[in-house]
Amino acid sequence: MVVKVYGPDYASTKRVIACLIEKEIEFETVPINIFNGDTKKPEFLALQPFGVVPVIEDEDGTLFESRAIIRYCAQKYESQGTALFGKTSRERGLVEQWLEVEAHNFHPPVYNLVVNIMFSSQLGITPDPKVIEESEEKLGKVLDIYEMRLSRNKYLAGDFFSLADLSHLPFTQYLVGGVGKEYMIRGRKHVSAWWDNISNRASWKKILQL
Amino acid sequence: MVVKVYGPDYASTKRVIACLIEKEIEFETVPINIFNGDTKKPEFLALQPFGVVPVIEDEDGTLFESRAIIRYCAQKYESQGTALFGKTSRERGLVEQWLEVEAHNFHPPVYNLVVNIMFSSQLGITPDPKVIEESEEKLGKVLDIYEMRLSRNKYLAGDFFSLADLSHLPFTQYLVGGVGKEYMIRGRKHVSAWWDNISNRASWKKILQL
Repeated sequence: MVVKVYGPDYASTKRVIACLIEKEIEFETVPINIFNGDTKKPEFLALQPFGVVPVIEDEDGTLFESRAIIRYCAQKYESQGTALFGKTSRERGLVEQWLEVEAHNFHPPVYNLVVNIMFSSQLGITPDPKVIEESEEKLGKVLDIYEMRLSRNKYLAGDFFSLADLSHLPFTQYLVGGVGKEYMIRGRKHVSAWWDNISNRASWKKILQL
Repeated sequence: MVVKVYGPDYASTKRVIACLIEKEIEFETVPINIFNGDTKKPEFLALQPFGVVPVIEDEDGTLFESRAIIRYCAQKYESQGTALFGKTSRERGLVEQWLEVEAHNFHPPVYNLVVNIMFSSQLGITPDPKVIEESEEKLGKVLDIYEMRLSRNKYLAGDFFSLADLSHLPFTQYLVGGVGKEYMIRGRKHVSAWWDNISNRASWKKILQL
């Protein structure tokens, strides 16, 4: 069956769609509006009890949490498309390591910037200048470590594009776009080259056109 | 080679050690003190640029981030010990899903409670009653969803003990111990039975004795 993807318009779902395209998995999308209460309705909560996107549905059932879904697809369809876990157990370990760094070090400060700068009015919150300043500082330190890593490897997990790089696409796109902080990427030579490299993949360009 | 585990005294590292025991992987520990600056020294930063534990070292190199390490070990040593990813791709997807729920929904409020209630003096911070109250409220909602899930399945990912359950052990132990909020577990019948079940595994009992 074609994989159904709920909530295609949002950043976390784009992480999933990028993976589906890289793995050459056929999919269709089901629109969900996270700002009008769709995700808090009983029919959606039956799919995702925490009331957030994305959710996917395939022949085996439904699954949520974007980074769980991308791991599931990369594993289940291991033999087709891009080898997003690398090839050896060592490479896979490094993919997992940098995927966790994305989730726990990179994502929280970028998310705070996105919420406070891009979506404050839609979310009905007042932007907090202190949170913005602290988040930029934290993110800068994370990107300094990326700069060091990427000075020795073309991609985060080594010399191959992986889930670890892919997982950065949606929120880095916000950072260089709506958040207005492209200088944080461009001010770091190797991070800048990495961003050019991963954001120019056919999969990501296709998503930007959707 | 025997796997070296840096920083065995801390909760995130216990997540790794529980996995090593379940997978019957031989290991030795290297003490690290996170409160006296050990993790900010150049020799430690060469292993872990973010300056936190745990780190492991095996014949293939070093690896950090506890949830990356447990996935790496469960995969690399798939054929020995407990099948921590389950047996089918569907089961594995559900393990990944609930492992992500642990990381993104369960962990942040419990971590805030642990930092504010158990370790504020060691960390030199003033406990924030508002953070404590909000964290307890958030955690309560997460545990309500666990209660519903565990009323239909013995474990989070299904009827088998997995990485998803294992990943909850160290911080739930703090919650029912030093944090003093055992009632949050005991007040939910199925969560309570699950906790008894997973915390009585030989692997976890061994860690409590170490």
